[in-house]
Amino acid sequence: MTDSPAAEIAATPQTDDAQAADAAPAPNTPETAPVELLVCVKCRRGSETPEGGIRPGQALHDALAAADLPPNVALRAVECLSNCDHGCSVALRGGPKRWTYVYGNCHEAETAETLREGVALYAATENGLIPWRTRPEHLKRNCIARIPPLED
Amino acid sequence: MTDSPAAEIAATPQTDDAQAADAAPAPNTPETAPVELLVCVKCRRGSETPEGGIRPGQALHDALAAADLPPNVALRAVECLSNCDHGCSVALRGGPKRWTYVYGNCHEAETAETLREGVALYAATENGLIPWRTRPEHLKRNCIARIPPLED
Repeated sequence: MTDSPAAEIAATPQTDDAQAADAAPAPNTPETAPVELLVCVKCRRGSETPEGGIRPGQALHDALAAADLPPNVALRAVECLSNCDHGCSVALRGGPKRWTYVYGNCHEAETAETLREGVALYAATENGLIPWRTRPEHLKRNCIARIPPLED
Repeated sequence: MTDSPAAEIAATPQTDDAQAADAAPAPNTPETAPVELLVCVKCRRGSETPEGGIRPGQALHDALAAADLPPNVALRAVECLSNCDHGCSVALRGGPKRWTYVYGNCHEAETAETLREGVALYAATENGLIPWRTRPEHLKRNCIARIPPLED
């Protein structure tokens, strides 16, 4: 994975490119496009869910629904993000000028606050690139993939 | 990973959701939005590249540039997709009504033809969901993540 903590110490051949791409600080003129926080509510995080029980993905969604998300962020329950081996999973996107990110290994109790913080930082950027030094640890270590903006 | 071959035989707790979501056959009225095939040209696929040598990601891009892609598919060289542990990597997207997919473990010699086939199948769909039975094996086994359409 590119966004590994080791990348902070020494760039390896696997990490230096993304590191460089992420290094530029976000501009001071935030993009006004709304942001979507997509949460796979079907995720079982590798375990059987008791009949009638709530799935971990739904619990994560509900924790985020109760969090103090920025006003320009819409929380959206979605189907499988095909990251089942490293669930629970969320995706962040926000208009044609921002990078889209998929994050894994999320947990309704352990990760919701970090996700809230990361979403706020993402929503404050124009291009979706949270500067590495201010990026929450979970987002550094659990980036599954990212997709470039529609517009340069 | 959701799109595992085992899912064809027996749906496990980790695989049935995406499987169900992907099961519906694509409509016969193809979406006309153009498709983008994004290739990370910076990928070193875990190895050092000799000075002056071509990177595996660039070689994959060049192999796809020489392939017979459908006319509504644009090949685009991009920066790191943050899937470095499972490179080389590509992403497929195509307008607000299609799912976006990230695929890993691609190889300029071994995977280019399969990718060409998969891209053509994707470009023929309205929603980006290639029916499981016709989906190329590499795409079944190497889906890193997917992101839902902007529009339902």
